[in-house]
Amino acid sequence: MTEVDSQITLALVPRYRHQGYSEEDVQARRRWLETVCSTDLDELAHDGLSTEELRGNIENPVGCVQVPLGISGPMVVNGNHAQGQFYIPLATTEGALVRSYERGMVTTARSGGVTVRVIDDENSIVPVFHCESLIQALELCEWIGENFAPLAAIANATTQFGCLIAIEPFVTGKDVYARFRYQVGDAHGMNMITRATSVACQFVKSNCPVVLGFLVTTGACSEKRASGVLFSGGKGKRVVAESILPAGVLRTHLRVSPEQMLDMWHSTLTAQLHSNSTGYNGHFANGLTAMFIALGQDVANVTNSAVGLTSFSMTGGGDLYMSIVLPSLTVATIGGGTGTPTSQACLRILGCAGSGKALRLAELVGATVLCGELSMGAAIASGEFAAAHERYGRNRPHQIQASNGMPVSEVSV
Amino acid sequence: MTEVDSQITLALVPRYRHQGYSEEDVQARRRWLETVCSTDLDELAHDGLSTEELRGNIENPVGCVQVPLGISGPMVVNGNHAQGQFYIPLATTEGALVRSYERGMVTTARSGGVTVRVIDDENSIVPVFHCESLIQALELCEWIGENFAPLAAIANATTQFGCLIAIEPFVTGKDVYARFRYQVGDAHGMNMITRATSVACQFVKSNCPVVLGFLVTTGACSEKRASGVLFSGGKGKRVVAESILPAGVLRTHLRVSPEQMLDMWHSTLTAQLHSNSTGYNGHFANGLTAMFIALGQDVANVTNSAVGLTSFSMTGGGDLYMSIVLPSLTVATIGGGTGTPTSQACLRILGCAGSGKALRLAELVGATVLCGELSMGAAIASGEFAAAHERYGRNRPHQIQASNGMPVSEVSV
Amino acid sequence: MTEVDSQITLALVPRYRHQGYSEEDVQARRRWLETVCSTDLDELAHDGLSTEELRGNIENPVGCVQVPLGISGPMVVNGNHAQGQFYIPLATTEGALVRSYERGMVTTARSGGVTVRVIDDENSIVPVFHCESLIQALELCEWIGENFAPLAAIANATTQFGCLIAIEPFVTGKDVYARFRYQVGDAHGMNMITRATSVACQFVKSNCPVVLGFLVTTGACSEKRASGVLFSGGKGKRVVAESILPAGVLRTHLRVSPEQMLDMWHSTLTAQLHSNSTGYNGHFANGLTAMFIALGQDVANVTNSAVGLTSFSMTGGGDLYMSIVLPSLTVATIGGGTGTPTSQACLRILGCAGSGKALRLAELVGATVLCGELSMGAAIASGEFAAAHERYGRNRPHQIQASNGMPVSEVSV
Amino acid sequence: MTEVDSQITLALVPRYRHQGYSEEDVQARRRWLETVCSTDLDELAHDGLSTEELRGNIENPVGCVQVPLGISGPMVVNGNHAQGQFYIPLATTEGALVRSYERGMVTTARSGGVTVRVIDDENSIVPVFHCESLIQALELCEWIGENFAPLAAIANATTQFGCLIAIEPFVTGKDVYARFRYQVGDAHGMNMITRATSVACQFVKSNCPVVLGFLVTTGACSEKRASGVLFSGGKGKRVVAESILPAGVLRTHLRVSPEQMLDMWHSTLTAQLHSNSTGYNGHFANGLTAMFIALGQDVANVTNSAVGLTSFSMTGGGDLYMSIVLPSLTVATIGGGTGTPTSQACLRILGCAGSGKALRLAELVGATVLCGELSMGAAIASGEFAAAHERYGRNRPHQIQASNGMPVSEVSV
Repeated sequence: MTEVDSQITLALVPRYRHQGYSEEDVQARRRWLETVCSTDLDELAHDGLSTEELRGNIENPVGCVQVPLGISGPMVVNGNHAQGQFYIPLATTEGALVRSYERGMVTTARSGGVTVRVIDDENSIVPVFHCESLIQALELCEWIGENFAPLAAIANATTQFGCLIAIEPFVTGKDVYARFRYQVGDAHGMNMITRATSVACQFVKSNCPVVLGFLVTTGACSEKRASGVLFSGGKGKRVVAESILPAGVLRTHLRVSPEQMLDMWHSTLTAQLHSNSTGYNGHFANGLTAMFIALGQDVANVTNSAVGLTSFSMTGGGDLYMSIVLPSLTVATIGGGTGTPTSQACLRILGCAGSGKALRLAELVGATVLCGELSMGAAIASGEFAAAHERYGRNRPHQIQASNGMPVSEVSV
Repeated sequence: MTEVDSQITLALVPRYRHQGYSEEDVQARRRWLETVCSTDLDELAHDGLSTEELRGNIENPVGCVQVPLGISGPMVVNGNHAQGQFYIPLATTEGALVRSYERGMVTTARSGGVTVRVIDDENSIVPVFHCESLIQALELCEWIGENFAPLAAIANATTQFGCLIAIEPFVTGKDVYARFRYQVGDAHGMNMITRATSVACQFVKSNCPVVLGFLVTTGACSEKRASGVLFSGGKGKRVVAESILPAGVLRTHLRVSPEQMLDMWHSTLTAQLHSNSTGYNGHFANGLTAMFIALGQDVANVTNSAVGLTSFSMTGGGDLYMSIVLPSLTVATIGGGTGTPTSQACLRILGCAGSGKALRLAELVGATVLCGELSMGAAIASGEFAAAHERYGRNRPHQIQASNGMPVSEVSV
Repeated sequence: MTEVDSQITLALVPRYRHQGYSEEDVQARRRWLETVCSTDLDELAHDGLSTEELRGNIENPVGCVQVPLGISGPMVVNGNHAQGQFYIPLATTEGALVRSYERGMVTTARSGGVTVRVIDDENSIVPVFHCESLIQALELCEWIGENFAPLAAIANATTQFGCLIAIEPFVTGKDVYARFRYQVGDAHGMNMITRATSVACQFVKSNCPVVLGFLVTTGACSEKRASGVLFSGGKGKRVVAESILPAGVLRTHLRVSPEQMLDMWHSTLTAQLHSNSTGYNGHFANGLTAMFIALGQDVANVTNSAVGLTSFSMTGGGDLYMSIVLPSLTVATIGGGTGTPTSQACLRILGCAGSGKALRLAELVGATVLCGELSMGAAIASGEFAAAHERYGRNRPHQIQASNGMPVSEVSV
Repeated sequence: MTEVDSQITLALVPRYRHQGYSEEDVQARRRWLETVCSTDLDELAHDGLSTEELRGNIENPVGCVQVPLGISGPMVVNGNHAQGQFYIPLATTEGALVRSYERGMVTTARSGGVTVRVIDDENSIVPVFHCESLIQALELCEWIGENFAPLAAIANATTQFGCLIAIEPFVTGKDVYARFRYQVGDAHGMNMITRATSVACQFVKSNCPVVLGFLVTTGACSEKRASGVLFSGGKGKRVVAESILPAGVLRTHLRVSPEQMLDMWHSTLTAQLHSNSTGYNGHFANGLTAMFIALGQDVANVTNSAVGLTSFSMTGGGDLYMSIVLPSLTVATIGGGTGTPTSQACLRILGCAGSGKALRLAELVGATVLCGELSMGAAIASGEFAAAHERYGRNRPHQIQASNGMPVSEVSV
């Protein structure tokens, strides 16, 4: 066994790290960091974030970072929880992104808006139980089925908002994986259901003699990862949105025809199938990331939320129908990072601050994502994609002609 | 054809939106938004971001959002470009994340550090060319092969840093998809290679008679999406890192044995295979997202960067070997969002500000990701996972016992 | 519109093609084929297949092909439906395959046999219904939920053995996909449930006003394709098998240690993750194909049946534990090709001919697949893989040394 | 350690098993099997397969199985190696399959035929080398690059037809995986390249000091498994085929319009994306399996060969364009099972017996697969899918109406 432990002198972050959330502690930590890194870090010191409020959101705080915030809209939404015109806050440093979403929003608005619904709303975690054999693993499956009521009572006692609605076990040999499915209200809920499931697993271990041990999570729920299983639901909100774009509106606002959009869809879809993509979409990740940062969501959840489908087809009347599916959207309006001052401000822009607003937020995210798919798809189809990044991004000026020979106007992406 | 265009009165974002990056413009836009949304948005007004600098990074700016920044370390790195002790800036609101990465860093530091290398470094984009038939599509493939030199000259003339190194066409019928592979230096490079490829495609269309049209991008490169093709390389940097953890260090710092880690790996791997995950890892997305926000990276690229592999095995001497592979890490030290004041500060913490630093940054990201995999894996294996989130997160206090019956100490995640 | 129809003179297969299943018809068709192809086809004429019995299994029959049949065993099985020693018929032309499975069988037999269970047993088909809008699509979902009873009655009336147990709709915009889940008894059941679902869909279309049309199948069930959704079950039988291999037995019979097997598993697993494999296994397809051909199964179903998991781990006592999961095994003992004379003979070898035997057959397939995984894995781990193919295959003799330097014995694969 | 070895009395297959390929040996083995299984197995005894010829194709032979053979055509092919009208032998027991492919063939023939090309033609195997560390693993990668010439010489010396064209290493930590890419001529080549690579690996191990050991295969090449990496090529032949179907021919022969076909494609594609299918196609597996059994191919290779793409689009003139891609078709005209009497007869039907014919066979398989996609797609689109299986399959008669209300004619599938 190697023994290197004693041979390295580590400069640990000073002792006030964990306890210290006062303005002084944060500053002292930042000063210490300036010394060990030999650099000035004044840019990280900002008012606004009361440091004591950071407790529970971060450890070893040294300040905060700033991300530019743009506004995109108006977007006309026909949802169950969100109806009317909305302006979407997008935090990003990718030039052209805000403008691109905006032109998608204006185009759908001119077409009657985006219809959107949240279909399912759950969260799940999948612990594993170790048994001696396949036979005993199957006994455990049966035991879980017979003991759902006490398990639910125990799990639900740990949480005010969560509710265990099903346990679905499957075996892969002598191990039993059990999907614990919960309703989590307006919270993200991952910590909530981890705690609840942990207590339930303890109960299983104590009461079912075939259980040798357990791990409270295995990743089978695909939290913060891209997996095919996300399409089966159970990880966040399933959101579906649609819009019908009249050919005339498309031509005026995006300079494309429905036929060009279908050709673009065909080509990009084929390309993604060939690349073994999980699902198909243009750039769900862009809009999701910018909204998640602005709205205090757990941004790492974009990894699972960005798995989904975008679809285009022709209507009988020669217009363009489009829809998007977000099978696994993870958003919340309470808990996590939603409480920071800037998150609260952004949530208020959408009327989504506080309890009872998560479904409304999910609808607005779904509608935004659709507008982004429309806009980028149209930029590709019209041949303006490269030129638009040129105009709004940080590229040095360079002569570009749209692939269709058209002049590239201001609103091209 | 539907005609809804004229029936809706849209409150467009005022006209000063695109041109206006002065402090006054931003404030006026924010005031306007306050009015239409009937809310106060003072939290979004901050010093620090000189608004004029936002040009090229955002449109319709109304202010900026703040994300708490923690520091995690020290991490001992043995790279080609990064060597020594490092403190990693992580911007997040997920309680316990910074602490979890820190304990992974300290544990690997006590074990001799993380060895890390950048194996490949490219970026790519895949346009599609439409032809009349399969036969003509194959002619185009041949034409591209014969005309690489002029195409490269044309593409490279559009960029100071990028260099076209290969064009790899494939047909799926009458369409030709062509992977344009570039070296992009220290920049992200997507806009750069889009522009270069656009010009090259124009040349193809003008000079090869079988080409009917083209789309400059199809998504086959898997930019900002999770796809299997990412393992084949060509989208960003391929980074591999390893560490050997002596059993004694594991026991002391993480309260697990190598055997427990292997069991955890086996269980979580099986779970993810069963869920049809793309690759396998614990939570690459967490560390990547927190670093990307802090360091001004394009955060939406976490979607492709988080696809990768984590692996554990036993050494002959009974210690734990671990490695991670990031086949598609997209990081930059110039361009994009790296120029904001807080990004610059965070890059300086790592000695990664400016040109010539992208490989160093990639090594530090790779090492950080490895430490996160170690820490979360150990928390799951030791039964402390739920309790750790309890201690550091925003959950209301609740009695939890680690699944192994051990008391949960301060450093549990 | 192109008009090429009339310009080609096609030599259609003669008119007796569809009606003709008599010995004379088959012979006449073969003679005709000999003429148009200018070749002698006597090899295709065989006794044994009474041609009239071919009706329903094939059209345009010209004879039959012969595939060599080997026997592999004994395999000791501890199932719910199959218990004792079995000899498995394998139809193949791949040298070494039968011998490889046999040595896996003998090794597991010497270790106490294979425990195996069928966990689930269903079949499914997923039609799509077209609606006008997302709103109407959701109305249809509700309508289906409210009308399950009459739909089940209508579907079940079309079949003697099938039973509709659930309809699970999901929307992707204005379309509703509905998973129709059935129990199908001992039959393959795909034709059965296609018919039943077709009638049910007609009922939906006639009675639910929002339905504009439907397609009876969409492929969402992954029949005869490899898809991630197969792990969720519902397409055939979910079979799990396990065996514990004492280190001594492994050494004697397969010349490997448990540690070598774990290393092999680790390496091949990593390789397959890197290749974006659906699931992980060594060569399920080999055993499944050879059994399916021998036993009159629909061999194209190997495509879905071969998706699954193989897993190895160490027991506390230093022995090797292994398990396999076949989430989507499609086997039958009645209908389809099970009625041919040679299929009946092979089914009788297993005691699986006729009604009430499908679960027994599924257990035997599961156990066989496990033995194949053990044998090939051991051949790779011991370094005898190449040499074994040399000995039994058609390669010309060539000097090969096992990678571990050991002499390659008779039983090496 | 468990000791069960001695406690079971196994009835091993008698000693004449391996050596015995004479008529008497086969018969004796079959008689023995009849005794232990208490059943008569006369159906398995057939003339035609000279048992001595089985050596190298099977072990423990007890006879052979028979699979019905139908003929489908004419198919008009415009390939590089196959041109004119062809009749395709299909061995299957799935009623309606032959008829379905035939109507696709006649329809494409009436439309001018199928254009098809083989784009690439390789085979590969991926061994793994174990090293001490990531640093040494990278040294090995370099060593391999520098020693390609001697490695190729050594590998190529083991084979008459194979030729090593590249070695592509990648690391995942301290292990090096190396893709050995070969040209294999008209053979399947897997045994050939396994042998060649084994010898090359021995050379690496003997000459490169950082190599601790190796495994000759890891599965990264996706032989006999469905994986995303197959789209990148290198496993068998990449085949692309296309056909343009005039709207009038579609209507006459398949009773569908191009618009209906596009709608069907849209729906089934969306369904498969939602199911996380690898690639997209209707039923490649059906045609491939039936051809592979008839033609003595390694049928287990359908698992990788059936991964591919089917695509439909509208031409400018309102006709239907379709194409298919088989990125990984594994076919051979010499070696393996191609030498059995019935395989030889079937190969002769296609003019594909013997050396120099593999590319021709690949083209014919590609064209056949396209015709199958057209026919099944049209049956689904026209609403005749269920009824067609009814007519030709073994279902008991039952009243079915096509979903479009049309009468179901003879040629419906």
